[in-house]
Amino acid sequence: MSRVASVKIGLLGCGTVGGGVIRLIERHRAYLAAKVGAPLEIVRVLVRELDAPRVPECRREWLTTDPEQVLSEELDVVVEVLGGEEPAGALLRRALARGASVVTANKLLLARQGPALLGEAVEAGVDLAFEASVGGGIPIVRTLREALTSDWVGSLHGILNGTCNYILTEMQRRRAGFEEMLAEAQALGYAEAEPSLDVDGHDAAQKLVVLSMLAFGAKVDAARVPTEGIRKIDQLDFHYADRFGYTIKHLAIGREHGEALSLRVHPALVAKSSVFANIDGVLNGVRVIGEALGPCLLVGRGAGEMPTAVSVVADIVDVARSRREGEPGLATRGIQLQERPLLPLEDVESRYYLRFDVEDRPGVLGGIANGLAAEGVSIEQMVQDGRARALEQPVSVLIITHVTREGAVQRALEAISRQPFLRGPARLLRIEDV
Amino acid sequence: MSRVASVKIGLLGCGTVGGGVIRLIERHRAYLAAKVGAPLEIVRVLVRELDAPRVPECRREWLTTDPEQVLSEELDVVVEVLGGEEPAGALLRRALARGASVVTANKLLLARQGPALLGEAVEAGVDLAFEASVGGGIPIVRTLREALTSDWVGSLHGILNGTCNYILTEMQRRRAGFEEMLAEAQALGYAEAEPSLDVDGHDAAQKLVVLSMLAFGAKVDAARVPTEGIRKIDQLDFHYADRFGYTIKHLAIGREHGEALSLRVHPALVAKSSVFANIDGVLNGVRVIGEALGPCLLVGRGAGEMPTAVSVVADIVDVARSRREGEPGLATRGIQLQERPLLPLEDVESRYYLRFDVEDRPGVLGGIANGLAAEGVSIEQMVQDGRARALEQPVSVLIITHVTREGAVQRALEAISRQPFLRGPARLLRIEDV
Repeated sequence: MSRVASVKIGLLGCGTVGGGVIRLIERHRAYLAAKVGAPLEIVRVLVRELDAPRVPECRREWLTTDPEQVLSEELDVVVEVLGGEEPAGALLRRALARGASVVTANKLLLARQGPALLGEAVEAGVDLAFEASVGGGIPIVRTLREALTSDWVGSLHGILNGTCNYILTEMQRRRAGFEEMLAEAQALGYAEAEPSLDVDGHDAAQKLVVLSMLAFGAKVDAARVPTEGIRKIDQLDFHYADRFGYTIKHLAIGREHGEALSLRVHPALVAKSSVFANIDGVLNGVRVIGEALGPCLLVGRGAGEMPTAVSVVADIVDVARSRREGEPGLATRGIQLQERPLLPLEDVESRYYLRFDVEDRPGVLGGIANGLAAEGVSIEQMVQDGRARALEQPVSVLIITHVTREGAVQRALEAISRQPFLRGPARLLRIEDV
Repeated sequence: MSRVASVKIGLLGCGTVGGGVIRLIERHRAYLAAKVGAPLEIVRVLVRELDAPRVPECRREWLTTDPEQVLSEELDVVVEVLGGEEPAGALLRRALARGASVVTANKLLLARQGPALLGEAVEAGVDLAFEASVGGGIPIVRTLREALTSDWVGSLHGILNGTCNYILTEMQRRRAGFEEMLAEAQALGYAEAEPSLDVDGHDAAQKLVVLSMLAFGAKVDAARVPTEGIRKIDQLDFHYADRFGYTIKHLAIGREHGEALSLRVHPALVAKSSVFANIDGVLNGVRVIGEALGPCLLVGRGAGEMPTAVSVVADIVDVARSRREGEPGLATRGIQLQERPLLPLEDVESRYYLRFDVEDRPGVLGGIANGLAAEGVSIEQMVQDGRARALEQPVSVLIITHVTREGAVQRALEAISRQPFLRGPARLLRIEDV
């Protein structure tokens, strides 16, 4: 490829993130040109409506509602901030086939088609960069791709969904219930009207799948990742977690486990003294443990127009630089994805917090302890809630187990659930040392 | 520059970090070759003694005790892990002049000669990369250089010295004194026999100067950075900090302040609920606030053979890649350093924790309050320590001020220090909202 006078950019989408990208490119024009070695030139911007209000830096002559108008240009970089699997995927595939490098912020698309798109980018000898797809303003993709280039990642823990983290943080701070805090998050714009993608953990699972490509070289279907959300967490869980020295966070976890890879998304107890316990509100955080590097934690805004736009522009600079140097493909180089077997959840080993809401009568503690012992689950702490309650109200029995295989705990819970003294389903939360 | 078959590397120094670099390069040979587009080939290694024990991956035929033997090779990358200002500086200058790109882990050298070395690298059209010089295994240099490329950094807070952080963490956990914990840190190898560089804050100041080149484009002499260590912190300070909801951390701080730049290194009170308060032991952490990105925090091992080696190898891959692509200089591109005026400490605005050890008699509180009021220092909280003490023992008066200019506080302390009821020098700790 010959040296180009300017790096020609097409934008697919011009919502809040797209507007932020345009604003940053225009504002930092001279500096970015120095970094790239050539000016960045926005050529075309795909929009839904020509006349919607936009940032003042966005020029009218760039706009088109026709994707063909964007893709028919001779572009160096196509930036996709449309969101959604299609038509984003089809458009990016065409851009790659035409020899453009691609920058995308689209986690859903990457979780569904990431390995295929990376393969097409490698084949076309161009870049596919996606820093903004996970953790908005946190440079986690860059860190996995570059800083850890001479290391093996043993495990990864992430607070990857800002909505869940906001709701859990506020439930803890204000001793409020899930529904109430969800409603507030919706009012503040931190949660969608249809919140399932966030609060049921699917968004975090998609992001975990994207990170697993880089951290573990793994090609994984997000639907195969054991995924639990936060709807069942209640004030009593926070109360008891606190008593044992923990708080509750919604985590996405990846861990090497011999041939297999353990991936899971669920709420978990996290020690209050840990840094993770204090990643609050809409912040996201990711901790990676490298074999040589040891622990590395990154915390920042997981979403938002400008943090995401900063990550998109950092990617644009990277791929523009490698095109200008006549050797694109840096962002994808060395990435070799493999199908990896996933460790079944019952084979995961962890400590567990168990809560049984039971009748307050003799024999109950013994019944629970025997049920656990029958499956070889060993108890580290067992507490019966001593708070004064109205008669006939159930009391809570709390148990912290030693490290155990999850299958054993699940079987014990099933057996105990058939006991007549149980007043509701037993609760299980994993305890993560993070 | 023509494409090369392999990327030829010379190593200056082969201590623990150098050994780690050799080990990682050999272990990840195939993957690194894929990332770079050519194999990395170690050609020469400068050592003090040929026969000292080394990692098994280090080949005897690489070793030489003569720097000329290294520099006379046609090298693509010279890696400096000698430490100390000279002869490291002179050797790197010659390497740059011969057209080699340079990777260094040497914070002292960078703090003293960083701008000059960067200038020589730019002139020679080669790279100078230095991720490992600050925060060992934390990718902070890369984050400032690349992730924040389209943003302005407003402020930077760092826990940059693992020795100080270990000592303060253990003083807090175990209610121990500074001298005792210093002795322990020395026994564990976390502190030098001559600990001044660490515990008096000079090491952190050098690292702050290195980060300020990237974060603020500033050319600063570390000797001009107001620097305080942790020798004066005692158990009473931890006790009272805790009572107000704080812990004590040793911080390096940079902040844009109009035309000027505010740089300082000192212990400070940090809210216990903040993520920073939980960065414990030998961990380091850096928080940057970008105008668009918002807060971004990175935490990891600040030192240690392997974390540092991982950062060095990540730099080697970067500069090797850009050489192989025929356009070195990526790591230094766009860095434009300026002399910037530093904000005098007396013009810094902050909240303050003040401690007065005084005689327990009427009029003392009034005397202190009047002294502060005379300089316009407004009090947020004032507490006289109510713990039972032997008669004739001084009692402590604790004050948390509202935001005030430091000059006013210093003048008030000077006036109050002349009061007859004072039993020792007043203590001042800044409160940082981090």
